[in-house]
Amino acid sequence: MLGDVSTKAAHALGLPEVSDFFAKLIQRVSPKSYQQALIEVLVTQKFLENFCGDQVRFLARSFAVPGNHLGQQSHGFRWPYGPVAVIAPFNFPLEIPLLQLMGALYMGNKPVLKVDSKVCIVMEQMLRLLHECGLPVDDVDFINSDGKTMNKLLVEAKPRMTLFTGSSRVAEKLADDLSGRVKLEDAGFDWKILGPDVNEVDYVAWVCDQDAYACSGQKCSAESILFMHENWSKSSLIDKMTELAARRKLDDLTIGPVLTVTTETMLDHAKKLLQIPGSRLLFGGEALQNHSIPKIYGAIKPTAIFVPLEEILKDEHYPLVTKEIFGPFQVVTEYKDNQLPLVLDALEKMHAHLTAAVVSNDILFLQKVIGNSVNGTTYAGLRARTTGAPQNHWFGPAGDPRGAGIGTPEAIKLVWSCHREIIYDVGPMPLGWKVPAST
Amino acid sequence: MLGDVSTKAAHALGLPEVSDFFAKLIQRVSPKSYQQALIEVLVTQKFLENFCGDQVRFLARSFAVPGNHLGQQSHGFRWPYGPVAVIAPFNFPLEIPLLQLMGALYMGNKPVLKVDSKVCIVMEQMLRLLHECGLPVDDVDFINSDGKTMNKLLVEAKPRMTLFTGSSRVAEKLADDLSGRVKLEDAGFDWKILGPDVNEVDYVAWVCDQDAYACSGQKCSAESILFMHENWSKSSLIDKMTELAARRKLDDLTIGPVLTVTTETMLDHAKKLLQIPGSRLLFGGEALQNHSIPKIYGAIKPTAIFVPLEEILKDEHYPLVTKEIFGPFQVVTEYKDNQLPLVLDALEKMHAHLTAAVVSNDILFLQKVIGNSVNGTTYAGLRARTTGAPQNHWFGPAGDPRGAGIGTPEAIKLVWSCHREIIYDVGPMPLGWKVPAST
Amino acid sequence: MLGDVSTKAAHALGLPEVSDFFAKLIQRVSPKSYQQALIEVLVTQKFLENFCGDQVRFLARSFAVPGNHLGQQSHGFRWPYGPVAVIAPFNFPLEIPLLQLMGALYMGNKPVLKVDSKVCIVMEQMLRLLHECGLPVDDVDFINSDGKTMNKLLVEAKPRMTLFTGSSRVAEKLADDLSGRVKLEDAGFDWKILGPDVNEVDYVAWVCDQDAYACSGQKCSAESILFMHENWSKSSLIDKMTELAARRKLDDLTIGPVLTVTTETMLDHAKKLLQIPGSRLLFGGEALQNHSIPKIYGAIKPTAIFVPLEEILKDEHYPLVTKEIFGPFQVVTEYKDNQLPLVLDALEKMHAHLTAAVVSNDILFLQKVIGNSVNGTTYAGLRARTTGAPQNHWFGPAGDPRGAGIGTPEAIKLVWSCHREIIYDVGPMPLGWKVPAST
Amino acid sequence: MLGDVSTKAAHALGLPEVSDFFAKLIQRVSPKSYQQALIEVLVTQKFLENFCGDQVRFLARSFAVPGNHLGQQSHGFRWPYGPVAVIAPFNFPLEIPLLQLMGALYMGNKPVLKVDSKVCIVMEQMLRLLHECGLPVDDVDFINSDGKTMNKLLVEAKPRMTLFTGSSRVAEKLADDLSGRVKLEDAGFDWKILGPDVNEVDYVAWVCDQDAYACSGQKCSAESILFMHENWSKSSLIDKMTELAARRKLDDLTIGPVLTVTTETMLDHAKKLLQIPGSRLLFGGEALQNHSIPKIYGAIKPTAIFVPLEEILKDEHYPLVTKEIFGPFQVVTEYKDNQLPLVLDALEKMHAHLTAAVVSNDILFLQKVIGNSVNGTTYAGLRARTTGAPQNHWFGPAGDPRGAGIGTPEAIKLVWSCHREIIYDVGPMPLGWKVPAST
Repeated sequence: MLGDVSTKAAHALGLPEVSDFFAKLIQRVSPKSYQQALIEVLVTQKFLENFCGDQVRFLARSFAVPGNHLGQQSHGFRWPYGPVAVIAPFNFPLEIPLLQLMGALYMGNKPVLKVDSKVCIVMEQMLRLLHECGLPVDDVDFINSDGKTMNKLLVEAKPRMTLFTGSSRVAEKLADDLSGRVKLEDAGFDWKILGPDVNEVDYVAWVCDQDAYACSGQKCSAESILFMHENWSKSSLIDKMTELAARRKLDDLTIGPVLTVTTETMLDHAKKLLQIPGSRLLFGGEALQNHSIPKIYGAIKPTAIFVPLEEILKDEHYPLVTKEIFGPFQVVTEYKDNQLPLVLDALEKMHAHLTAAVVSNDILFLQKVIGNSVNGTTYAGLRARTTGAPQNHWFGPAGDPRGAGIGTPEAIKLVWSCHREIIYDVGPMPLGWKVPAST
Repeated sequence: MLGDVSTKAAHALGLPEVSDFFAKLIQRVSPKSYQQALIEVLVTQKFLENFCGDQVRFLARSFAVPGNHLGQQSHGFRWPYGPVAVIAPFNFPLEIPLLQLMGALYMGNKPVLKVDSKVCIVMEQMLRLLHECGLPVDDVDFINSDGKTMNKLLVEAKPRMTLFTGSSRVAEKLADDLSGRVKLEDAGFDWKILGPDVNEVDYVAWVCDQDAYACSGQKCSAESILFMHENWSKSSLIDKMTELAARRKLDDLTIGPVLTVTTETMLDHAKKLLQIPGSRLLFGGEALQNHSIPKIYGAIKPTAIFVPLEEILKDEHYPLVTKEIFGPFQVVTEYKDNQLPLVLDALEKMHAHLTAAVVSNDILFLQKVIGNSVNGTTYAGLRARTTGAPQNHWFGPAGDPRGAGIGTPEAIKLVWSCHREIIYDVGPMPLGWKVPAST
Repeated sequence: MLGDVSTKAAHALGLPEVSDFFAKLIQRVSPKSYQQALIEVLVTQKFLENFCGDQVRFLARSFAVPGNHLGQQSHGFRWPYGPVAVIAPFNFPLEIPLLQLMGALYMGNKPVLKVDSKVCIVMEQMLRLLHECGLPVDDVDFINSDGKTMNKLLVEAKPRMTLFTGSSRVAEKLADDLSGRVKLEDAGFDWKILGPDVNEVDYVAWVCDQDAYACSGQKCSAESILFMHENWSKSSLIDKMTELAARRKLDDLTIGPVLTVTTETMLDHAKKLLQIPGSRLLFGGEALQNHSIPKIYGAIKPTAIFVPLEEILKDEHYPLVTKEIFGPFQVVTEYKDNQLPLVLDALEKMHAHLTAAVVSNDILFLQKVIGNSVNGTTYAGLRARTTGAPQNHWFGPAGDPRGAGIGTPEAIKLVWSCHREIIYDVGPMPLGWKVPAST
Repeated sequence: MLGDVSTKAAHALGLPEVSDFFAKLIQRVSPKSYQQALIEVLVTQKFLENFCGDQVRFLARSFAVPGNHLGQQSHGFRWPYGPVAVIAPFNFPLEIPLLQLMGALYMGNKPVLKVDSKVCIVMEQMLRLLHECGLPVDDVDFINSDGKTMNKLLVEAKPRMTLFTGSSRVAEKLADDLSGRVKLEDAGFDWKILGPDVNEVDYVAWVCDQDAYACSGQKCSAESILFMHENWSKSSLIDKMTELAARRKLDDLTIGPVLTVTTETMLDHAKKLLQIPGSRLLFGGEALQNHSIPKIYGAIKPTAIFVPLEEILKDEHYPLVTKEIFGPFQVVTEYKDNQLPLVLDALEKMHAHLTAAVVSNDILFLQKVIGNSVNGTTYAGLRARTTGAPQNHWFGPAGDPRGAGIGTPEAIKLVWSCHREIIYDVGPMPLGWKVPAST
């Protein structure tokens, strides 16, 4: 049945007037360009296509293994939790809640859904579309509330599992309140390393620009720090990144308001970084001009600040440098050939491990960096990026048993079901069986 | 390398003098019969055989899926957490810590191991055997301490994952202290249902006796409540169970000391149950005589108390009846053909969902009970039992995202590793690629 | 890309005017009722839905296992053959060729397609629809020819793999001509066993009627022989089957022309069977009247002939009784409780092993029959049938390394790809490596 | 049970006196160095370790998918064929027959085994060891005969599946005689390509020497042709290969008798190659001296002949150059950067596709060569080789539906079992079901 709903919803979302409607609706509540909003709709549509026809039932595939005697066989199932909750953030008003909600439904759960109240109108419209496509109205409970009310509801209703996507601070509070019955996908301080082999500088510069500044840096996968091999410093990379950042403008929302950090906070952070010895402003570092963005939001130009590697690693600077700014802001640094161990050290000390990129086609370099890091979604190769994950691969943090995933069959099975083993043992009884002694 | 260690350790444990040594050592610290202790050794040995040769590397099997263009491919890995902890209980001094410890090692983690201090000598000897078989001494940290010290260590050292097997109370405390970075296998109030088709009464009676009273009921899978279809009440089942319980004696430890519940507590619980209208003592309900078991432990005869189903379901009785007694103690009840929904209700209200048994070869009956319950390890069929899980199938609770598993490749992968996705994107760049507009 | 083609084609086939067009087109060339023709279209549509979105790329999922040293890893891929051929029969003009063709394409092959020349207009129209949905015109070669010409083409062009669906005779010739580079799904003499537990007689009778006589028995999965437990003989089953057979009429094609066996051949076969001692006509056994079906085709009433089990097993009768008649014709027999071994004997002696049904909810009976038979698609349980396989499960023969499958991801991977192992071994070289002695 | 047999046999084979016994026994009948013979024993032992404990039952793992209504579920099984045959060659008297035999047994078949009569004493001893370890004597039929008698037996006994490892000529005859009911692993003309990145010349030269000349070239994976990028020609590679070849001597069987090709045939082939314009002898090309090897066997020095790439591709030379010589003989050629397409052409024209090696750490180069070739076991990376496959990865040809594999769980499942689907459909019947109209 859910296969049919997905088929119809995927087709509907693919109609130009519908995808345009949702893209514009997303833009109304979440500051991103039309192109970025449209991609969000298309990724959602492709996800639904993935679960057309029998694919929902294929998710529920179990396995069986012969037992110790005739008539015995153990079956491993993915089993639903039953009552569950989904809590979704403001930055992807359609994609994140829809993908997790459908995942919960596909595995047979009864979800209650709460989306950030600033943007929940998008999912409210999407739910109406799903109902139109055949989703029974009783299958999902949709709640509009502030976080505090939702927290109270969860603590009282005790869903067997709660999926939370959002800030690390709220994530930790929820984990405590719900005694760990959660799966979390929290924001990360995501890194990119450029390896020793310099190639396709135009392309790499463009990817850096998109990774750091698309959606004004408000993706949980946004590039927060860039480690350049010295060979790249000698190239035109930084110049090109500077040019690309300068193209961004408020008109088309290629740069725009930041919903959770004020202008003042961001400029203040920049100032502190620039006090570190050897630091320098690469570009940006100023407030946007001529706009009507309210003061409670942030509005700065795409910003990059260089900090020397040795300084980053110092205990007095490390927490400052690796503080996540959920806006158009990145740190850039440089390492020499023999400094790779220092870079790996810097990575290991980070707390969250969401996305990462290793930009190199040098097999041994890739092997070394990947083998010494733990980020859940790690891109590798000359075309590596930190953002723009499609629906066709897993997206999520690693290194934490509470880590959630999104997108693929594996993610759905891991987040929305648990293992249950049914062992059939039906006989026949062996001929001449006698009651043995007690043990 | 760990494949070789497993091969050697499995062979060593299989030598009669070694298995005998460990069986007797287990008996010294854990009150169970020689037969039960030996089975614990053999299950451990079989488990090690399962990870001989290349099977450890096969655990680390990853998958890959083609990407969106030439040179792109996403790889899903099972990745180790790194520093982890294993906390194991008293009732299976060899099997539980060894299986979880090796699982942690197989997936590439660095574990610290703590076993209940009353029985930790068994694992201390086993670790020496593993070192002899080639396990590097640095691979495992082994700590002897009380629970309080261990709790302090965990809160300070912050292992990325902690596996706890033991009581629900401690499990919940740990989940809070470690903000949910845990996997838990806590004790359960396990049920068995006898279906409408009466067959092989001798066999079923013997299984009930073993499920409820082997190891003096101190298995997390021990039968705590038995739901009989009225057809079974009319059979000789209860008579036979009474006879079998009477065979158990202190001499050979087929009944013995209870380490965590005193005689007084158990007899007091029996008294309260017998005050429920319609209740009656089936057998047992008395202290063991002529023994030197210290007062801080418990010592009672195998006990079964009948309580009517309607009374069990009443709010004022339900918590009392379903209180877990980690000793040789069970509740028995009866249901009529049309009362199956009441039985399913009683199951749904339980908190923990470890093992269960549905004793019936009636396909439609099995389908109904299994479809309406959630226990992690559920046996089905005429030969169903609640205890005695071998190494060849998953064992663990379901319905909780923190639930652990033990035994099989699936259990090891789920408990001791997390998903990591590496997306290779190496090019070549498409011919004539140009920098696109910002988004 | 093929995911998009499938998405569009599934949507198109689901439009009422398109499914109606194809159902009627099928009826023009293949003698079946509108309902049966429409089901063929719907199964095809559902199959296409299964491979929407990323599901085609998920088919190409590979796995990897760590090697013996740093830098070594072996990857197991499903690899396409390259140039392949599909040969499809007359009875399912849309479903069989489309499913196999798409399977070949999904795995990356370059197929040439040949459909029985009497019905190939259906696939010709379907290919135009696929082209409309984006399938490049070069991806498939479509050939209209007689079998002889096709055989010559195959022997000369040497495709790496040829999938053949059709008669056993042609299948064996092809296997010889192509030195075994084939996968085959040939017609079968399919059996159904009714177990000792009699239940839902109306339902079972209806399923027997459909299994034996829908599409005038011209399905490779049609019921050819029915083994009734004596308990069923005592029920009203045969009476009900007789009534149901009598409902079938030429008007709506619920009974109709047989394309590969003449009336004379079928009636002659009936006459021979009736000469076996103890045999009797249950119903049918006469030519259809008042029709314009050409003599080269067959036209008889739905027919069932009873033959005693002991006689079937005799060497002089067995080949006659188990001769497949690709028309509305079945043999019925009866077995007593202690004769099950004779029934299993009769099954084992059969040559082809396509579908089978074991109609019983008795677990031990099911276990015994299934464990002693080898049919590729075996239905078990009270609602078991031999025909009407949907797209959601594998359909194909077993017990032959040349056996093909159709429908599911497993079938596509098995038939249309082979295993290829790529072992990466990139270094780094161990420090201080020296050239060893020759071996 | 077979898990126990494997455990015991693995342990026994690992005892120094047993492995030494088998290594020397292999040397008695098959001309290879002690080291090579010992490796054969150890690979066999490791394989057995892989199927200790429950791993045999895990091979029989099935899966299940929910059906269309309550009570319906389809199960996909790997099912044994029943009576099967294994035919093994002379060059690996222990490894090939043992691995395939155990694979057949693990999946539940009843195999008859025939090993080349010159070397069958090795398996005869191994079978006695297996019986000692608990293998029932009835489980395997062992036959000693010439090929003709065996062929007759197969044609008459009609095993459901026959696994043949050996020469392409016999393979094709068997495929014809058994109408394709075979899986084949025939000898190949295996290639190695050295990419543009020159590194670790000593190592690569040593691997080339072992690949081409270990076991006197009598491995089905032996290097038959070497394509060097021009950068390698400029290195000391050929000089080093020449030195390494000169180290081989008859004393320790690092060079020795060739069982299936005479000295004359090999020298004659060399002469013909040297007549191609631009060809030259790199080293070897002479008969061994001072030995007592009978004339019916071959005995030449390790030989390499350079032939220009352009000449190889000419129609008049291609069949000659790519003729397989099952002895210590290879062709060497060189390609310039822009000639890679010619090399890929040369590969595509080959008939058999067993092993291959792409020696390069250049990701884009690897991608191009691998994407354009089809060899079943392809090594990639600086440390790539063509021979020496361990038990931990699949080994077998690709591109042919009759292709077999050896070694891994995937190989065993593919070769020794077929897919069978059991669809349970047990009800309950929907309330108020009525007999529908016929279709």
